[in-house]
Amino acid sequence: MLRDLIIKNRSCRRFLESKKIEPGVLKDLIDLARLSPSGSNLQPLKYIISNEPTMNAKIFPHLGWAGYLTNWDGPGEGERPAAYILILGDTLIKKSFNCDHGIAAQSIMLGACEQGLRGCIIASINREKLRQDLNISGQYELLLILALGMPREKIALETVGKDGSIKYWRDKEGVHHVPKRKLEDIILSV
Amino acid sequence: MLRDLIIKNRSCRRFLESKKIEPGVLKDLIDLARLSPSGSNLQPLKYIISNEPTMNAKIFPHLGWAGYLTNWDGPGEGERPAAYILILGDTLIKKSFNCDHGIAAQSIMLGACEQGLRGCIIASINREKLRQDLNISGQYELLLILALGMPREKIALETVGKDGSIKYWRDKEGVHHVPKRKLEDIILSV
Repeated sequence: MLRDLIIKNRSCRRFLESKKIEPGVLKDLIDLARLSPSGSNLQPLKYIISNEPTMNAKIFPHLGWAGYLTNWDGPGEGERPAAYILILGDTLIKKSFNCDHGIAAQSIMLGACEQGLRGCIIASINREKLRQDLNISGQYELLLILALGMPREKIALETVGKDGSIKYWRDKEGVHHVPKRKLEDIILSV
Repeated sequence: MLRDLIIKNRSCRRFLESKKIEPGVLKDLIDLARLSPSGSNLQPLKYIISNEPTMNAKIFPHLGWAGYLTNWDGPGEGERPAAYILILGDTLIKKSFNCDHGIAAQSIMLGACEQGLRGCIIASINREKLRQDLNISGQYELLLILALGMPREKIALETVGKDGSIKYWRDKEGVHHVPKRKLEDIILSV
């Protein structure tokens, strides 16, 4: 059931880096995005796959990780993502991409989760430096990077407490706690 | 399997309007969005439900339908959506919403599809008039409207042809054809 998959699909930031993800798996995930809705059906999104250590190492330094965990600089060697999918907007097709990349990212992340992978949708990117290092043409706007791998952390889905904080946090055992707002607090009556 | 659900989940614009969707069903769909990723976990999205003819009739006139079907003004009486979910951005939480609403919309549409419903993610909205008619506070940015109902049209998923057109079209039998770009055309090599 979709609900089970959505609950299982927690953002994950530590991985079994040595567990390689084959290009065919990544292409199948992009195919899920291809078959998803796109504004005016324009389909302006393009994708770049990375699953080799050399290219992964070019991408990793340009990513921001878990802003609320101020004592953590991101995954260390051996626990970094095994693969990335870069989501780009082709400006020859469209100048702004509305929320197409959100739709695409959710299809990909759910598909990855179904296969036992986990990942993180990353928008905190040093875009210009990454563009230089990967030699990405100015034709493409860098929208999102999806970090993927076999998960190596425990994540607890919780409800926002009395203090109202939505900041995720890690306990002493390294469990990552994620507070979600209550359903009744996000539905408005008119 | 998720792939089957994603393929089944075609945007639909004609419905069995009389087939009411209960508020509990709509709330369960919003719960899927609630449990989906949100940038920095800020969860700035709020939702408004409409499933009554009076409120539906206030929403419908402010929606744009199927821009490429120039001879069609949208669904007629009896084939209009049975319900809507409005996705709003709470500007007291965040000023821009990145692609959070895309992620949320995809979770909701897949959940609706799993239950035999179909719908359409609509961004073409006369926002100011709708805001007036529903008396929506300026605190909320109107991001998307999800139109939902029991489907009353056939949709054919196809591959973009030699002319490269991505415009959907309807044949004489009323079947709605949707050309998607090829996978090899959306994956870039670097």
